[in-house]
Amino acid sequence: MINIKENERLSVLNHSGAHLLAQAIKHLYPNALFWVGPVIEEGFYYDIDLGDIKLTEEDLPKIEREMKKIVKDGKKIVRHELTKNEALEKFQDNPYKIDLINDMDKDTIISCYTQGDFTDLCRGPHVDSVKELKNFKLLKISGAYYKGDSKNKMLQRVYGIVFDNPEDLEKHLQELEEAKQRDHRKIGKEMGIYMMSDLVGRGLPMYLPNGFILWNLLENYIRDKEIKRGYLHVQTPPLGNVNLYKTSGHLEHYRDSMFPIMQVEDEEYVLRPMNCPHHMVIYDYEMHSYRDLPLRIAEIARDCRYEASGALKGIERVRTFCQNDSHIFCTPEQIEEEFKGVVELILEVYKEMNITDYKFELSLRDKNDKVKYHQDDEMWEMAEDALRKIMNDIGIPYEEKIGEAAFYGPKLDVQVRPAVGNAFSLSTCQIDFCLPMKFDLKYIDKDGTKKTPVVLHRAIFGSIDRTIAYYLEETKGILPFWLAPVEVNIIPVNTEYHLEYAKEIKSILEDNGIRVNLDDRNEKLGFKMRESQTKKIPMTLILGDIEKDNRTISYRLYSKQDTTNLSIDEFVNLLKEKIKNKN
Amino acid sequence: MINIKENERLSVLNHSGAHLLAQAIKHLYPNALFWVGPVIEEGFYYDIDLGDIKLTEEDLPKIEREMKKIVKDGKKIVRHELTKNEALEKFQDNPYKIDLINDMDKDTIISCYTQGDFTDLCRGPHVDSVKELKNFKLLKISGAYYKGDSKNKMLQRVYGIVFDNPEDLEKHLQELEEAKQRDHRKIGKEMGIYMMSDLVGRGLPMYLPNGFILWNLLENYIRDKEIKRGYLHVQTPPLGNVNLYKTSGHLEHYRDSMFPIMQVEDEEYVLRPMNCPHHMVIYDYEMHSYRDLPLRIAEIARDCRYEASGALKGIERVRTFCQNDSHIFCTPEQIEEEFKGVVELILEVYKEMNITDYKFELSLRDKNDKVKYHQDDEMWEMAEDALRKIMNDIGIPYEEKIGEAAFYGPKLDVQVRPAVGNAFSLSTCQIDFCLPMKFDLKYIDKDGTKKTPVVLHRAIFGSIDRTIAYYLEETKGILPFWLAPVEVNIIPVNTEYHLEYAKEIKSILEDNGIRVNLDDRNEKLGFKMRESQTKKIPMTLILGDIEKDNRTISYRLYSKQDTTNLSIDEFVNLLKEKIKNKN
Repeated sequence: MINIKENERLSVLNHSGAHLLAQAIKHLYPNALFWVGPVIEEGFYYDIDLGDIKLTEEDLPKIEREMKKIVKDGKKIVRHELTKNEALEKFQDNPYKIDLINDMDKDTIISCYTQGDFTDLCRGPHVDSVKELKNFKLLKISGAYYKGDSKNKMLQRVYGIVFDNPEDLEKHLQELEEAKQRDHRKIGKEMGIYMMSDLVGRGLPMYLPNGFILWNLLENYIRDKEIKRGYLHVQTPPLGNVNLYKTSGHLEHYRDSMFPIMQVEDEEYVLRPMNCPHHMVIYDYEMHSYRDLPLRIAEIARDCRYEASGALKGIERVRTFCQNDSHIFCTPEQIEEEFKGVVELILEVYKEMNITDYKFELSLRDKNDKVKYHQDDEMWEMAEDALRKIMNDIGIPYEEKIGEAAFYGPKLDVQVRPAVGNAFSLSTCQIDFCLPMKFDLKYIDKDGTKKTPVVLHRAIFGSIDRTIAYYLEETKGILPFWLAPVEVNIIPVNTEYHLEYAKEIKSILEDNGIRVNLDDRNEKLGFKMRESQTKKIPMTLILGDIEKDNRTISYRLYSKQDTTNLSIDEFVNLLKEKIKNKN
Repeated sequence: MINIKENERLSVLNHSGAHLLAQAIKHLYPNALFWVGPVIEEGFYYDIDLGDIKLTEEDLPKIEREMKKIVKDGKKIVRHELTKNEALEKFQDNPYKIDLINDMDKDTIISCYTQGDFTDLCRGPHVDSVKELKNFKLLKISGAYYKGDSKNKMLQRVYGIVFDNPEDLEKHLQELEEAKQRDHRKIGKEMGIYMMSDLVGRGLPMYLPNGFILWNLLENYIRDKEIKRGYLHVQTPPLGNVNLYKTSGHLEHYRDSMFPIMQVEDEEYVLRPMNCPHHMVIYDYEMHSYRDLPLRIAEIARDCRYEASGALKGIERVRTFCQNDSHIFCTPEQIEEEFKGVVELILEVYKEMNITDYKFELSLRDKNDKVKYHQDDEMWEMAEDALRKIMNDIGIPYEEKIGEAAFYGPKLDVQVRPAVGNAFSLSTCQIDFCLPMKFDLKYIDKDGTKKTPVVLHRAIFGSIDRTIAYYLEETKGILPFWLAPVEVNIIPVNTEYHLEYAKEIKSILEDNGIRVNLDDRNEKLGFKMRESQTKKIPMTLILGDIEKDNRTISYRLYSKQDTTNLSIDEFVNLLKEKIKNKN
């Protein structure tokens, strides 16, 4: 999706669009008072005080018609300059603008823009004529407190967007519609994946039965893969003593993203933003020899991070989430092999989950930033060189990103581009020479001396919650068979004659580990068939006389019209193959 | 294990035992100063200031010899009474006793007991002669702050116990030894089940790889059983807005067991002590019809409760744990059927897990306690009558316990008696007419009116952590095959000739879902066999020429001496049977 603020021409167009909106509003509602009308990523908005009048989405067409009239009239947009006193006089009827002007230095030259009968205080620049604004669209209305303070009056915020030509506008509106259809908050609700509740708390998702099935399938999927690769899974608590985060350095460098500290007897506890320190302590539980390494400690680990309530979004940006995290403790000689193993696992998972639009990025430090990064030049040079060498050896293309490294080391990020919205980092692997030192971790090397292991931090699903959000948006909720909360929906043609057979088939499928729903409601066949589609169930079984008499089943795939008849055994084998192949 | 404090004669004996200990210490360490020497559940102790002298366990035999001498000497124990001033003069050399005396009212008659050359301030009563104290044993030494305050001086606390006869003493010492051998903290460490770390925090267990395997097996085991019974699993966060616990009443009635409140923006959050409120909110997410009920919401749910650090014990008493919790929302007519289902599930699980020593208790309220229980007489009468009727109908014997009910309703508790230690409540099922009202939950009944559902709170494993502790102590760590972290240990007779075959067998077993270790170390066969026993691995495979040439395996069961030879297929089938039958 285009970012209007990042395009100079579109910024100017949309800024002028805000004035056009204000002028139309003033024509329709002469008592309207205006606060500010800035350009944003999504276009523009204007915050308006309409007294007792409350706009709804239904008023937008009327306002759009008035805007079109103004465009057709084709007035020039003209800049004037005023002194502060002149501006105060000119806008004396609008307390919001007076407030803005009062905040300015007394010698400032204040600019205004006039188009026909409408003048607004504005820094500009603007387009030359309202004629250039014809390809606009108003998008939505919301409330917004004056100055963003809930103690102040609630103003009305009208959003819109302007493009240079009708094709760009049309394309953008289609993208918006697509994004709306794909929005995981909409699909998540329709499919019963998760719910949010202010009573439970902002940014704290609650996974509903269908959502937990999906969650648990992803958890088991990635854990089984890890077990095959020799990872050892642990379970650690979602909080820790503050001293743990003093030792790790998180308390100093990550405090802003942490929940408040809790005083318990003579100790201080905090919800953990990351679980690396817990895994360091597990490593340190016993003395290790070089023969024990690599040691791959893994966990589906719950973390809690403070995010501003305004930044929260569905299960994409939350305040508690789970990582499929791992810390690989190894010798310097093992880094390359272990790193390769992680990249292989990432590629394997992406292939099976049909994640195709991604790129590898090496996130390196900005050498000049002396605050954001752990200070140890030698360590950084060594780690960054090692990372580059490994990626070059593996032969996968990558981009270097300066200033994107983690606090304690450089990392490989896999940026996934979703169907809508911005690319995000789904997987990561990070070399860390620093944390093992802070925890004074050791192993006894071949020569009998104690050495500090290197740690690779890695996550394939950086957040299982985020992964589910992404996957719902990618698939529009049409999940592959192996991830569908209900895999097979059974519809008896007649709930009197065919119910027993339907129950038998259900039982056979369940014994084979298939997730089955039996629709035994007393509704029409056609109605049930349509609902099976609406619910996006991958396979619908229709069981009538033919099936019952021959001990077969007939199935229809999601979105398909044709029906296939199979023996029960053939069908069970088909399903097992589907699950095995993640088809 | 006997509770000394609950037995009047043993209390007196042990109180006198403390004086006997003090007298012996005074003989051996003339500068010793004494603080207090009370009777406790486990016997007695005395807190002693020995200046710079630090006692160790190795000093105990010497002290016991001195105590024996005093017993043999056979002095009478004589009571005197003093005024406060006389007492202050008599104990002027001991600031600890002076402190005690100063706290007393000035008119108090203060009693002392004298035996030979030793007099102690004491309320009594005591036995008549030290002769009665001959069956004693000193148990251990620890440090203890004066008045329990870490700012004060650390005193030395010596523990002991006295019985009336040598048989009782011997029996008790054997029980102590048995308890020590079975202690889950010892077994848990030996088997790599969990670790604790002060850096991570007190009462916050971290499950090590073997422990997590066990944990995960129990979790999947109980969840699969619940799925078969129509439970719907969800996943909710381990914290919530304080308003949630205001609504539920926990904040008012359970505050002492909750972690401190965290301020986040304009809201207050708290780690949840229970997850009932979360499940109430999930029920309330959509409108329900009577046709949707019963609705069985279930979760392996993490809760966090404040426990005083002194009360913590391994994974038995912790500050964070997981329940296999469920809330069954049903109509009043469905209570009986649902309650029966829960009892059936409890009995099924206990049978499969070989839990045999338990009893059912109906925990009812104490009508006179107006603080501990939700105030609604009608509700309580109805719930308690319903519970009795159900238990009588099922025909399982039970005891009634007045004053043991939960805050919001009566409950069925299953008290399990472990091999050592006190009985504890492993499973619970509780009828609640109260919480659904507080959350204003509704369903639409057949007649179209809105009604409030009843909730059954139930947990089969009240705490998975506690269950693991119990199970380790019951089995002494010799877990049944299906729960063993490593089920099969493969030992190639010669790591040169038989390693490839061993690897092949390992791979075949792993493909069949068996947890296998291959001991490919360059050690002697006998050494490896013994270690396989020490590690309590249920099955050890020995693979040599015969097995390799005939493509068979030879296995030996834990603690058995004989070896059985089977074809690979026969062996795989045997293991599958074992797992299926929880053998």
